[in-house]
Amino acid sequence: MSHPASAPIGVFDSGIGGLTVVAALRTILPAEKIFYLGDTARVPYGGKTRETVTRYSVEISEYLLQKGCKAIVVACNTASALAVPTLQGKWTIPILGMIQPGAEAAVAATQNGRIGIIGTRATVLSRAYDEAIRSLSPTARVISHACPVLVPMIEEGWLDDALTDAAIERYLRPLLEAKIDTLVLGCTHYPLLKSAIARIAGSFVQIVDSAQNCAVLLRARLVAQGLAASEGEGALQVSLTDNSIGFLPVLERSLQIQFGEPAIVQLG
Amino acid sequence: MSHPASAPIGVFDSGIGGLTVVAALRTILPAEKIFYLGDTARVPYGGKTRETVTRYSVEISEYLLQKGCKAIVVACNTASALAVPTLQGKWTIPILGMIQPGAEAAVAATQNGRIGIIGTRATVLSRAYDEAIRSLSPTARVISHACPVLVPMIEEGWLDDALTDAAIERYLRPLLEAKIDTLVLGCTHYPLLKSAIARIAGSFVQIVDSAQNCAVLLRARLVAQGLAASEGEGALQVSLTDNSIGFLPVLERSLQIQFGEPAIVQLG
Repeated sequence: MSHPASAPIGVFDSGIGGLTVVAALRTILPAEKIFYLGDTARVPYGGKTRETVTRYSVEISEYLLQKGCKAIVVACNTASALAVPTLQGKWTIPILGMIQPGAEAAVAATQNGRIGIIGTRATVLSRAYDEAIRSLSPTARVISHACPVLVPMIEEGWLDDALTDAAIERYLRPLLEAKIDTLVLGCTHYPLLKSAIARIAGSFVQIVDSAQNCAVLLRARLVAQGLAASEGEGALQVSLTDNSIGFLPVLERSLQIQFGEPAIVQLG
Repeated sequence: MSHPASAPIGVFDSGIGGLTVVAALRTILPAEKIFYLGDTARVPYGGKTRETVTRYSVEISEYLLQKGCKAIVVACNTASALAVPTLQGKWTIPILGMIQPGAEAAVAATQNGRIGIIGTRATVLSRAYDEAIRSLSPTARVISHACPVLVPMIEEGWLDDALTDAAIERYLRPLLEAKIDTLVLGCTHYPLLKSAIARIAGSFVQIVDSAQNCAVLLRARLVAQGLAASEGEGALQVSLTDNSIGFLPVLERSLQIQFGEPAIVQLG
């Protein structure tokens, strides 16, 4: 099946944190239509197994293909870590996760070869970033830490907050002691804490935001395959599998984007 | 369908936090067999809507009935708040949630009629505790606060911890300013923080743990219907819908119970 360049890009996440990736896509690919699906009925994926996350990801990708999407962005680090190879094996359209773009950006940024990764438990346990980084730079040393308390703090809107700072300090301590000079924000919520994380990490540490590089790589893929939308203003449609708005107001305030009223779809 | 007294009691929760309720049931009903189902593939329910939580709860209850359970305990405050009336309308076996037992214990405990509730966002938004308390004591004043950061802190094992104490202080402040003398732990994870919460709330405030009273009420119902197991050592079987052990080690350490190797079942 070949798609017209005017077909939408499908973007999915376990919830609405992936809208930080949408913000990067809208900036770098402003003419594209984006169809976003947030699996809020089963959020979060971060503590679940590979089998379960893969099953959910296949189900959502089938739904996005039915909607005519020409490419899929897995805007969820956990699903990227656990399910992207399966999705890429099933379908031939461009399917990009967060891991490879984040790993490439980290390897390009590091000077001393010591790269820190923070993310959910499932992302860290998968060692997906470690493997992607090592395949690009076999001598790199990767130090990872799961930070499960940060997501609910972000969802509370505690973005510039002493308590959140204390949690970040606790989580970053082993990474800073290991002298990392590059830190990958391996969860789509974390860009909302980017300034606090950068301040606590200190000026020695470069912060890598996977979403930015994912958007750049996707643009190159679409152009190479003649699939890039060439004109128009683009559009964004947000659908969720459960009608809880969650921390949408926090996201809208922080990203300065209006996401509109989400449509509700039932999967599974 | 009538059940023998030797049939198991079905207990379910969105995850494994409901094992704190199992601990109370094992103490108060030591001769009973307990079949526990934790819906870890879809955990947590706390941010989801009534429709989604009810759909999951009906599905799980059907599964427990197929397993021959003579009674069902909804060991999840969110599912209790949103789905128990639907379950009680569908089936005639004893079905107990956390809300009614917690409300009864709170009304019995309060002297000044000011009762605080802490729980997930969905439990607090449902106002289920408010309604249950008001129907028992129309003049009671109920002050509720959602505390979404506490569950991941508990799951990190930060049970005796300055950062967790700071979060508890922040969440309890409006309740203490409203001069509550009774506080309901409206989430099955919170009993693991009972001593920290009691210390921060101060000696003026009585802490109500819904699980304890639920077990007492269930014992009375089983005895009244001739369904109580009269002898034997009882047993516990734990099943999960996803094979992530989550914070099981934290629970085992804190509750001093070995839960054994969970079986994995697929629902939905």
